[in-house]
Amino acid sequence: MHLFVAQLNPIVGDIRGNADKILFAIAEAQRQYADCILFSELVLSGYPPEDFLLLPSLINEVERQLKRIINSTAGITAIVGLPWKTERSPEKRLYNSAAIISDRSLVGFHHKCLLPTYDVFDEARYFESGKEFQLWSIAGKKVAVTICEDIWEHSGQVIPTTYHRDPIVELRPLGPDLLLNLSASPFSVNKPLRRVDVCAAAAVTLQCPVVLCNQVGANDSLIFDGNSCYIDAKGALVQMAKGFETDMLEIDLYATPAKPQSIPVQDATADLYHALVLGVRDYFHKSGFRKACLGLSGGVDSAVVACIAVEALGNNQMIGLSMPSRYTSQASKNDAVQLAEALDFDLHEISIEQPFTTYLNVLGPYFQNRGTDTTEENLQARIRGMYLMAISNKLGFIVLNTANKSEIAMGYATLYGDMCGGLSVLADVTKGQVYALANWINREREIIPAHTLQRAPTAELRPNQKDSDSLPDYDIIDNVVQEYLEYHLSPEAISTKHHYDLELVQSLIKKIHQNEYKRRQSPPGLRISEKSFLIGRRFPIVQGWV
Amino acid sequence: MHLFVAQLNPIVGDIRGNADKILFAIAEAQRQYADCILFSELVLSGYPPEDFLLLPSLINEVERQLKRIINSTAGITAIVGLPWKTERSPEKRLYNSAAIISDRSLVGFHHKCLLPTYDVFDEARYFESGKEFQLWSIAGKKVAVTICEDIWEHSGQVIPTTYHRDPIVELRPLGPDLLLNLSASPFSVNKPLRRVDVCAAAAVTLQCPVVLCNQVGANDSLIFDGNSCYIDAKGALVQMAKGFETDMLEIDLYATPAKPQSIPVQDATADLYHALVLGVRDYFHKSGFRKACLGLSGGVDSAVVACIAVEALGNNQMIGLSMPSRYTSQASKNDAVQLAEALDFDLHEISIEQPFTTYLNVLGPYFQNRGTDTTEENLQARIRGMYLMAISNKLGFIVLNTANKSEIAMGYATLYGDMCGGLSVLADVTKGQVYALANWINREREIIPAHTLQRAPTAELRPNQKDSDSLPDYDIIDNVVQEYLEYHLSPEAISTKHHYDLELVQSLIKKIHQNEYKRRQSPPGLRISEKSFLIGRRFPIVQGWV
Repeated sequence: MHLFVAQLNPIVGDIRGNADKILFAIAEAQRQYADCILFSELVLSGYPPEDFLLLPSLINEVERQLKRIINSTAGITAIVGLPWKTERSPEKRLYNSAAIISDRSLVGFHHKCLLPTYDVFDEARYFESGKEFQLWSIAGKKVAVTICEDIWEHSGQVIPTTYHRDPIVELRPLGPDLLLNLSASPFSVNKPLRRVDVCAAAAVTLQCPVVLCNQVGANDSLIFDGNSCYIDAKGALVQMAKGFETDMLEIDLYATPAKPQSIPVQDATADLYHALVLGVRDYFHKSGFRKACLGLSGGVDSAVVACIAVEALGNNQMIGLSMPSRYTSQASKNDAVQLAEALDFDLHEISIEQPFTTYLNVLGPYFQNRGTDTTEENLQARIRGMYLMAISNKLGFIVLNTANKSEIAMGYATLYGDMCGGLSVLADVTKGQVYALANWINREREIIPAHTLQRAPTAELRPNQKDSDSLPDYDIIDNVVQEYLEYHLSPEAISTKHHYDLELVQSLIKKIHQNEYKRRQSPPGLRISEKSFLIGRRFPIVQGWV
Repeated sequence: MHLFVAQLNPIVGDIRGNADKILFAIAEAQRQYADCILFSELVLSGYPPEDFLLLPSLINEVERQLKRIINSTAGITAIVGLPWKTERSPEKRLYNSAAIISDRSLVGFHHKCLLPTYDVFDEARYFESGKEFQLWSIAGKKVAVTICEDIWEHSGQVIPTTYHRDPIVELRPLGPDLLLNLSASPFSVNKPLRRVDVCAAAAVTLQCPVVLCNQVGANDSLIFDGNSCYIDAKGALVQMAKGFETDMLEIDLYATPAKPQSIPVQDATADLYHALVLGVRDYFHKSGFRKACLGLSGGVDSAVVACIAVEALGNNQMIGLSMPSRYTSQASKNDAVQLAEALDFDLHEISIEQPFTTYLNVLGPYFQNRGTDTTEENLQARIRGMYLMAISNKLGFIVLNTANKSEIAMGYATLYGDMCGGLSVLADVTKGQVYALANWINREREIIPAHTLQRAPTAELRPNQKDSDSLPDYDIIDNVVQEYLEYHLSPEAISTKHHYDLELVQSLIKKIHQNEYKRRQSPPGLRISEKSFLIGRRFPIVQGWV
């Protein structure tokens, strides 16, 4: 069987545009005499379509575009992910389906059985579960079709839910020759290899090859890495599509004995970098925007964001603002200049001194003789936000936010100040990962100034300020945040595991909850971990637990 | 049977504090020789607990506090809502349960069968469904226990989902003498009477009385109105607890023939006002805050917010800032002063002229000779935001945001400017409802200046500006927003139904989606409609549909 895997980058809600991409891929596969072409989960609507699924007019458009696709399948079988109406239920309830289309006929549907409803997934909000499996005859083979989560329950991968059924076990007695899987499986660090393991577990149980087609591209916070794969009946990886770009995998099943490919070496930091570049590029280009601006403090966070943005958008589509105050060191200003020269983008220096003085004069009489505190620090951060937003408004740039996950966890940032922007590039990247990215960016030549990497982190909002004046070491913060967010460990368990002072751990967890109100107003950002503050984590602001 | 209904106001996550409130109510019922006391859904955790349910340490605390409650029930039956671990599943999966406790013994649990997973509800994220019903013997009667949604499927009330089961039909053959329902049913305009209708439908089918205990109080965006009720076997309302405050309903079932109460006259605007007051008060007091500040423009939105805040927090816990610019009329300034005098709170006038001039001077050279546009308007709005946040930081006030739902739908507000604040009081209140509230507030004497209500809405960000320069009439906006948000009508259907120009409707819906990025960074707000932008509506920012 000559099988094509179309790893496409759909835009959520762009039903007609996504159908065009599907038709283009089918035409290509037909030219190459393919028997079958496999697409990703909900490729026609894009994933995740969220509440667009509740619009009857959108579901009608899906039906119209499906007819176009059916008409294009002369001599080929196409398996296309799409939302589909249930038979008996009110119009609004849907299945998450795969249409099996062959030679201009709609053969039938597989409806997704296991509907993830945890973390970033809300499928029970929209879909009903498919009830049973059947095999489909494609090029003389008995083929099982599954959708994403359908194959995860079997793998022993930790999933915080219970479905009380395992589709792989249900399929075993049917004896399929091949298992296909349509996925929209979002990226997180090390996820591509976990996905291969999941396929391998299914292959070994069913004693047949497994081919998985994953979505690629970013939609808002979720980044899909592609990395579609073909696993042989023994569970060995044979072929893998590209990561972080569209690709078409051409597979000759059964033709020759499959030669297992050695598992590609995964560089977590390189993957992270490519994921963030893809996330920025798709956020801009899918919305029709081209140009970015950001504040360059001379610190490592803004330096890394600048590198990512230049790669994603081009050096001539970005400007940097250096916005020194009375507390900014000459070294910080120099670092910003050096970075802009290395990446070759425009940098403007605009002092915040004049508005800062004006505000202190105007507002001083209303401060009731209270001493200097964070109010004055926030004023500086907000003047910088004001500058960035004004330039953005006037010249049509989108502001990139540069806060990292560790700061965001602690609320170490100013609402409407350094928390402003259209996209928060590092919102799910810990301070430790930011340094790893910086070193990876500098692996061949010094792009980010060495001084930026060597100096102690500082917000420079008062004389000789260091982050460590008000926060513990970032490695402690990063560990506590991960253990609490991803594994829900109690303060006591974290304290014991890492030999941290219990009161310190408790105070950090308290800070996480106290700053929920700030995060609620933060810009959208790119998710790259198993548990981000951006999406998939839902805690109230008002609460009495910590 | 002597039955008490404890309509409490729990704080989400405050397990010990909520248990204290439960113990206090039980003691009171014991003093009054009650046979039984009924609490609301998840009263021990507060509703909605969201991802707190994923913390094993919180579930352990629920178990500890349940033991305290059990020990307090000498001579009485208590029915208490709480999250409870499933038997066979990993620790993380739960039931949404009612513990039936009698005379210091745990008799058993009812597990909620129908788990709402739509709009603001995410119960499938946390809970498994209960499988079957049984009757419980209380004071010699056969009593059915249900939880909130369990009784809604039967009522014919529109619910956009299908459960494929109806607990009332399942209960009918068991022949209960009484149906109890534990609810956490959030307020929306006219919801209290819908809830009575739902109870009546169950009562008529089962031919037995129905008693419903609803939560009261606000947690973040969700406001619970209480209005717990007792419906007789014929479906007539007999007793109703207070709306918008804690209450204890004392019911003598079967003792004397129930005398149906005439259905209380519902004044939608009065309910709305009381809901918003409760929302503001609980947002502040449950977080330990007392003091609010807000910007007073002389317009109707900020005037209504000031009235609500004074009622919720007290006139001595609030200050207003009048922040005129070169474009502010004397009449606007006068209106702000008159309102502050009528409500007797402190008002400070601080001109934004100095920082505005400073910004224009500093930023002008970077504006590339482009003409005046919304950039200059946004600068003014953001200086006001800066003032409010600085006063808030220095003096410990929480800023109240005054944007209404109609503006928020259209994006007619400035990010980090008039969109700033800790709580958005009118975020789910349409411009039409704002005027209704203002007239209701003025029903006895003129609190809000007549001039405020008579003048055309204006942002006063350029000379002689009116909202109607860039927006159609607010009644058109309000109708389109409601039809599109609540009923998902297509532009064509809205145009036909209301005789609006199709292109106008399309442009308004496009505006709704284009401004998703702004709303994503708006403050939390109070939900009072069936579909708000705040919670329960999930649309992507990047999309290709409109």
